[in-house]
Amino acid sequence: MKPRPIVALAGGVGAARFLDGLARVLPPEQLFIIGNTGDDAEIHGLHVSPDLDTVMYTLGGLANPDRGWGIRGDTFRCLEALGRLGGETWFQLGDRDLATHLYRTERLRQGGALSQVTAEIAAALGVRSLIVPMSDHPVRTWVCTASGELEFQTYFVKRRARDTVAGIRFQGADEAAPAPGVIEAIGQAEAIIVCPSNPFISIGPILAVPGIRDALRQKRERIAAISPIVGGRALKGPAAHMMKSMKMQSSAAAVAQLYADFAGVFILDELDHKQADQVEALDLRAVITNTIMSGMRERKSLARAVVSALELAA
Amino acid sequence: MKPRPIVALAGGVGAARFLDGLARVLPPEQLFIIGNTGDDAEIHGLHVSPDLDTVMYTLGGLANPDRGWGIRGDTFRCLEALGRLGGETWFQLGDRDLATHLYRTERLRQGGALSQVTAEIAAALGVRSLIVPMSDHPVRTWVCTASGELEFQTYFVKRRARDTVAGIRFQGADEAAPAPGVIEAIGQAEAIIVCPSNPFISIGPILAVPGIRDALRQKRERIAAISPIVGGRALKGPAAHMMKSMKMQSSAAAVAQLYADFAGVFILDELDHKQADQVEALDLRAVITNTIMSGMRERKSLARAVVSALELAA
Repeated sequence: MKPRPIVALAGGVGAARFLDGLARVLPPEQLFIIGNTGDDAEIHGLHVSPDLDTVMYTLGGLANPDRGWGIRGDTFRCLEALGRLGGETWFQLGDRDLATHLYRTERLRQGGALSQVTAEIAAALGVRSLIVPMSDHPVRTWVCTASGELEFQTYFVKRRARDTVAGIRFQGADEAAPAPGVIEAIGQAEAIIVCPSNPFISIGPILAVPGIRDALRQKRERIAAISPIVGGRALKGPAAHMMKSMKMQSSAAAVAQLYADFAGVFILDELDHKQADQVEALDLRAVITNTIMSGMRERKSLARAVVSALELAA
Repeated sequence: MKPRPIVALAGGVGAARFLDGLARVLPPEQLFIIGNTGDDAEIHGLHVSPDLDTVMYTLGGLANPDRGWGIRGDTFRCLEALGRLGGETWFQLGDRDLATHLYRTERLRQGGALSQVTAEIAAALGVRSLIVPMSDHPVRTWVCTASGELEFQTYFVKRRARDTVAGIRFQGADEAAPAPGVIEAIGQAEAIIVCPSNPFISIGPILAVPGIRDALRQKRERIAAISPIVGGRALKGPAAHMMKSMKMQSSAAAVAQLYADFAGVFILDELDHKQADQVEALDLRAVITNTIMSGMRERKSLARAVVSALELAA
């Protein structure tokens, strides 16, 4: 009998590192990863899916270990040449990485669905887990700042996430449908894990696709979310800064509150053990462990802690 | 007073090498190069203009001296990665070369005309001559073979020009208009040079754009064509093979016949001096010189011979 899927909601680097551990603790074929596509962008006419790629490259063993994104040992000759032609170069596209975007863009133009094209790329890269975009329809994250509303990659990469964020909008989300298999996987899931990703810009777009949050609410007792905030800071990216500028406390407990309607378990770092009571007051079971993934050992031990919190057979 | 232009009709490698010499013998700013776009192709969704690029890269000092096409020292990491994804890799796109195609494709999608985008790229590469596509409209060369009609790059690169050619068709030519400035440049030209390019697939598409051949006929006495056939063989590419399979003699004189209605001077190699009478019988003035461009010295000396045959001030 085919085992019931373990579903993960994933953003970029933080999620990829956690999933890299999880795929070594559980059978990788059992993982059904729902990836954020709100930060997809058209760069030089190519369809770039940064979060899907980060997860694929990491699980395929190709990721750049220092930066987390892009391909290890990649070169940037095309980008340098584009710069000489007067093209924009703030979005770092490596030469090997470009192949992914060229392939994806061509297949999408031929009429392929993003979920299908993603499966093709992941298979070619030797990824054994299923990586599925949250939707085959375009959903685009816009960030409302004092300088006006910015496309996500403009806010995040070009302007280095320095603008004060007043709000976030997921363009197209209302008309989007979950990608094929997403709702079914959630329904059948043995457990569901919300990866340690930015709750606004990584997990937020996934939850904004109609039907996904409702489906999750049916599985509350089987859902564990991992805090991306440790000691008041984001492990990676602008989550803490965003929380503050949106007048929230930048704490693990504040993240727990964002997920309390659909998650039953909340994993927070040892550093934040004092917040366990706040978390439990939200009717979430608090699980305290080391969540800082300095290396493979920590990735795996966090994965084991989550597996154990969800009482999964590893 | 601005000097009257010297116009050149150009294909790929042979033309580029000749023009490289010519731009060192005449002021490069005086050259108005009309480039073939019949062999343009969409490769991985990118608009590739092989002949324009070969001329640009050569005049910009970037060309690969051995192959003639592509960029010197370019790497092929993106192409290798595309191959791993299952993409087609028969069309060799270097990493730096890719930047040209990405830039061009994006600018065309934004609504830029090919002539405008070509001028932008050439300027960025430091090319001082004007390189203008024969038309801003798509004209596509199809090759009729025993295996059916093939897109030009499929015939030329993928199948290595091995098919027997029964005929050639320039799709879109009838509806195409010469690019802005082309007819004017021909009209004002002090002289016009048909580069040593394949008469069917390099010069043929240019002549097929309505208005160009008629404009050339008005300037017959100021037009010199250089034979791409030496000793019955093409210096580069499949010209001789094509001539034979189309039941023509593969000789310099046979090329002269193809151009006799609009060219007044025909430059042929010393090896073919016995064909001078045949050429002159076509009412073309035959000029005999060494046309084999082994190195820069020969490129320049061929350029000087052409300049002298046309009685231009160098």
